Amino acid sequence: MPSPQGFLIFTLHMKLTLIGAGKLGTQLYNEFIKCPTIELVQWLDRSANKELTSEGIEIITSTNSLKKADLYLLAINDESIPTVSKLLSADAFVVHTSGGTSLTALSAQKRRGVFYPVQTFSSDRVVDFLNLPIGIEASNPEDLKFLNQFASLLKARALPLDSTQRKTLHLAAVLVNNFTNHLFTHAAQICEANQLSFDILRPLLSETVDKLNSLSPEKAQTGPAIRRDHKTITEHLEIIDNSELKKLYQDFTLSIQKHYGNEKL
Amino acid sequence: MPSPQGFLIFTLHMKLTLIGAGKLGTQLYNEFIKCPTIELVQWLDRSANKELTSEGIEIITSTNSLKKADLYLLAINDESIPTVSKLLSADAFVVHTSGGTSLTALSAQKRRGVFYPVQTFSSDRVVDFLNLPIGIEASNPEDLKFLNQFASLLKARALPLDSTQRKTLHLAAVLVNNFTNHLFTHAAQICEANQLSFDILRPLLSETVDKLNSLSPEKAQTGPAIRRDHKTITEHLEIIDNSELKKLYQDFTLSIQKHYGNEKL
Repeated sequence: MPSPQGFLIFTLHMKLTLIGAGKLGTQLYNEFIKCPTIELVQWLDRSANKELTSEGIEIITSTNSLKKADLYLLAINDESIPTVSKLLSADAFVVHTSGGTSLTALSAQKRRGVFYPVQTFSSDRVVDFLNLPIGIEASNPEDLKFLNQFASLLKARALPLDSTQRKTLHLAAVLVNNFTNHLFTHAAQICEANQLSFDILRPLLSETVDKLNSLSPEKAQTGPAIRRDHKTITEHLEIIDNSELKKLYQDFTLSIQKHYGNEKL
Repeated sequence: MPSPQGFLIFTLHMKLTLIGAGKLGTQLYNEFIKCPTIELVQWLDRSANKELTSEGIEIITSTNSLKKADLYLLAINDESIPTVSKLLSADAFVVHTSGGTSLTALSAQKRRGVFYPVQTFSSDRVVDFLNLPIGIEASNPEDLKFLNQFASLLKARALPLDSTQRKTLHLAAVLVNNFTNHLFTHAAQICEANQLSFDILRPLLSETVDKLNSLSPEKAQTGPAIRRDHKTITEHLEIIDNSELKKLYQDFTLSIQKHYGNEKL
């Protein structure tokens, strides 16, 4: 049936096998079962002790039991990707989900691809896939198109990226998520040691991210480093007990000051 | 008139003078004029070239022109606090807004205090004062009560803190805001250099903060450092051109790994 725009709407019905049941694998499982046009054939969970999920999807514990599917999605550790790939059929279309791993890690398959959700996944925390950017890459144009449609089934936003771009994006993601979160951990420790609730910082945490809707991070920078407020910097360094945090504080101060040079503030 | 709970509601009508017209001063001005029980007597803006604000508040450029007020609020650079304080009447109740400055910086006055909004202020960006934590401190209990009521007029959340607690909180604020924002700047630069829009990282930025509503930052940590994924760490260090960012990357990796020790992940 033609769409209102006059184009044919192609509804993809796909048979999918999910390999891996860690944080990402579990989140993906929960997304897939919500999607009527994705037929989850099997879920490989090495350490499973039951044969069916509560939604009736077959659970397997080894690649020996794999059935035929349109796509085999690996949600496994980066270092296991080449090993597991070699256990799969050479004809299978295999896709990994890693930001930092090349397409060539799947060299056992001719039809290979990447499906990298630019997000952090934790246990017991549901991530919203709506408009979530997903870096896609494939060894041939047809498979890239397929991954594009696969992302749209999840209502996510497919983003064709080559391996270099994806690795760079993964690095940027590590900075904005992993490192930022570790700063929060240090801040929480400092608060706790001084009978202060980390909750006090919540409005500041929200504003730190929200202000980027109207300002670039470069323009949003404030604080003692950019003001070259040596008195405060010295006092902060005196308060810090943790030697790793002291190093981070010094490096950030230097990096901020180098970045802004002698700009008038 | 008794409130529904049977208590007397004390509505503070206060005469206030605001000193300073930088980022914080301007935000505070905009809050004060919204509040019917705050009478803004004067606004001191050293570099002003008009005598009245568009709301009709008198603008002065020197402490010589100051009139009597219940409270003189300094929203000025940390280093100017003692100097400006000495220019004010010894009888005046003077309060600074700095997270990193002791109460003693106002030693020219007997009635001194602190009113430190735990937030970051940028030009052209309106901050929500509703429930905003404001660290308060005063040289006497009556003045502390007054600052508490002042905060409640702004619908903010007054938080009595001594100077040590406030400095610690300020350090924590620098970590979660200033340093975090600088990581965003590095990430934006990396993205730009690889024809990637910083917008791709927005869902990740939101999730980084939102997940702290259900997980402690300590539990929310993910990424190559905590996974001890040396291959990815090495590749990231190879991609990074900026020597300050390289140092930060190495220090974060070390700090995360030290923090989590040999925990099983």
